[in-house]
Amino acid sequence: MILLFGFGGVGRTYAELLYERTGLRLCAVFDSGGGVAKKDGFASDEVKQLLKIPRGAAAKSGVGRAATLDEALDICQVVVDVSPPNYETAEPALSLYRRALSRGLAVVTANKAPLALAFRELAHRRLYYKATVMAGTPLVDLLMGLPPQKALRVRGILNGSTNYVMTRVYKDGVPFEKAVEEAKELGILEPDPRLDLEGLDPAAKLVIIANTLGAPFALRDVVRRPLAPLGPVTRYLATLDLEAGRASVEPVRLAPDDPIHVDYTMNAVEIVTEVNNILVKGKGAGRRETALVLLNDTLKALRG
Amino acid sequence: MILLFGFGGVGRTYAELLYERTGLRLCAVFDSGGGVAKKDGFASDEVKQLLKIPRGAAAKSGVGRAATLDEALDICQVVVDVSPPNYETAEPALSLYRRALSRGLAVVTANKAPLALAFRELAHRRLYYKATVMAGTPLVDLLMGLPPQKALRVRGILNGSTNYVMTRVYKDGVPFEKAVEEAKELGILEPDPRLDLEGLDPAAKLVIIANTLGAPFALRDVVRRPLAPLGPVTRYLATLDLEAGRASVEPVRLAPDDPIHVDYTMNAVEIVTEVNNILVKGKGAGRRETALVLLNDTLKALRG
Repeated sequence: MILLFGFGGVGRTYAELLYERTGLRLCAVFDSGGGVAKKDGFASDEVKQLLKIPRGAAAKSGVGRAATLDEALDICQVVVDVSPPNYETAEPALSLYRRALSRGLAVVTANKAPLALAFRELAHRRLYYKATVMAGTPLVDLLMGLPPQKALRVRGILNGSTNYVMTRVYKDGVPFEKAVEEAKELGILEPDPRLDLEGLDPAAKLVIIANTLGAPFALRDVVRRPLAPLGPVTRYLATLDLEAGRASVEPVRLAPDDPIHVDYTMNAVEIVTEVNNILVKGKGAGRRETALVLLNDTLKALRG
Repeated sequence: MILLFGFGGVGRTYAELLYERTGLRLCAVFDSGGGVAKKDGFASDEVKQLLKIPRGAAAKSGVGRAATLDEALDICQVVVDVSPPNYETAEPALSLYRRALSRGLAVVTANKAPLALAFRELAHRRLYYKATVMAGTPLVDLLMGLPPQKALRVRGILNGSTNYVMTRVYKDGVPFEKAVEEAKELGILEPDPRLDLEGLDPAAKLVIIANTLGAPFALRDVVRRPLAPLGPVTRYLATLDLEAGRASVEPVRLAPDDPIHVDYTMNAVEIVTEVNNILVKGKGAGRRETALVLLNDTLKALRG
């Protein structure tokens, strides 16, 4: 049974799909206002009720009973974290992971911040995190299939929001400032657009990729330059040089036929290994995409 | 400790890399002429000796002691199968898998035939097979990360040998028959070139992809047409329609800008899901590539 930590767009889609596609149940739901729990798990109609409440009101929903996190951890097996990233402290998620993992629970997460700040501490067989990178595309599972094949370099377009902006500028001829405004209005940029435009989001993803490949980077190790239109076809490129120990996120002009050149909200990653040159393209965002990959990790967590 | 079943090019590279990069040991080595085993595992210099013997002569090498497969299964934990595919009966590998899995051993394989003929029977948590498809590129791990995300269609260039031939024809202007002869001389085509030119190899890979996505196809379910040059840019395309329950391998003319258009021995796979459109490109062959991916599965098998 699952403790859902975060009950916004992705969390609600996850809850719906969990009941539609698996026999699993939620035993607790927490949002910014507290949480509710139920020992035998919420019935399907209780989850439908929860889906109707406003954000932040889970504890007052009257579904199940109001509970503390510790009470919820006592009755659940897996924590699924879909709370927003806090790149200053990674809290409250980081403390929750520590408590859950030390009690033997599994943690499944779409929240990049705890991994970007404390990957080495958290690296644990019971931590599942493929929803943090290229949501909807299981890149992390592919990367885990490489060692001892040595990865040498990674280049990636890891942030769909800024890629949308750059595509509007260089494919559709929209001025940069106008493209940024448009992306804000469409909800493509994060509520705090600096996470995208100053590269924290793609830098966090790059840190997660690096650690998955065995290189102990943290967020502060990634050199970041803000997004800027430098001429055709500028893309916000994340680059990892595992031999030199360097990581960066910066606007770069790509050749139009560069294999990682993708448009709008698509993501692309190229991994050069000692014997291979792997290219993966796929969707990098979306509630349903993220929720489906979280479900795959949830099923894995319960199996293994 | 590992029972290595097959001691040709990939098997020998695997043995070398196992001793170079892991602390693991071989406990038995079998080839077409029988096998040798050693209870505590072969020391590094014994493996060096084995690497010098001619093919088929492991049993006469004087390293360890001559052993039967049953004796070897008693002292090993993981079977690694790099024997050549037999698309008629899948033997002797198929019987070996049955014996190993029923005794609780794990099986790691690069041999497509047992899976192409009997995937449903073999499907088992202790069977690891990502080296069977896109050797060097962990496509299978990515596919396993999808469910319950529903895959709808797959298109792939899964056979590097025929893709080399087609690239020579349509990129380099070499006549078809001459390109086939050249690929035989270079060792790019299988010793029995019908496996490539009549599509058994890519059909077997397509069956493995389908089953990994939960669709119970077997080799006889794949419609195959032999490779033929139909005009630019012909590619030997493997197609899987999971909704209609159809699978085929046939020469098809691709648009030059088709995303799965790759040249020479590269492979490409496109997976269309209910919410995503994933493209993976990478190397599809090579001893070292295959051996490295087998090592990743070996480490996974011993962990889980």
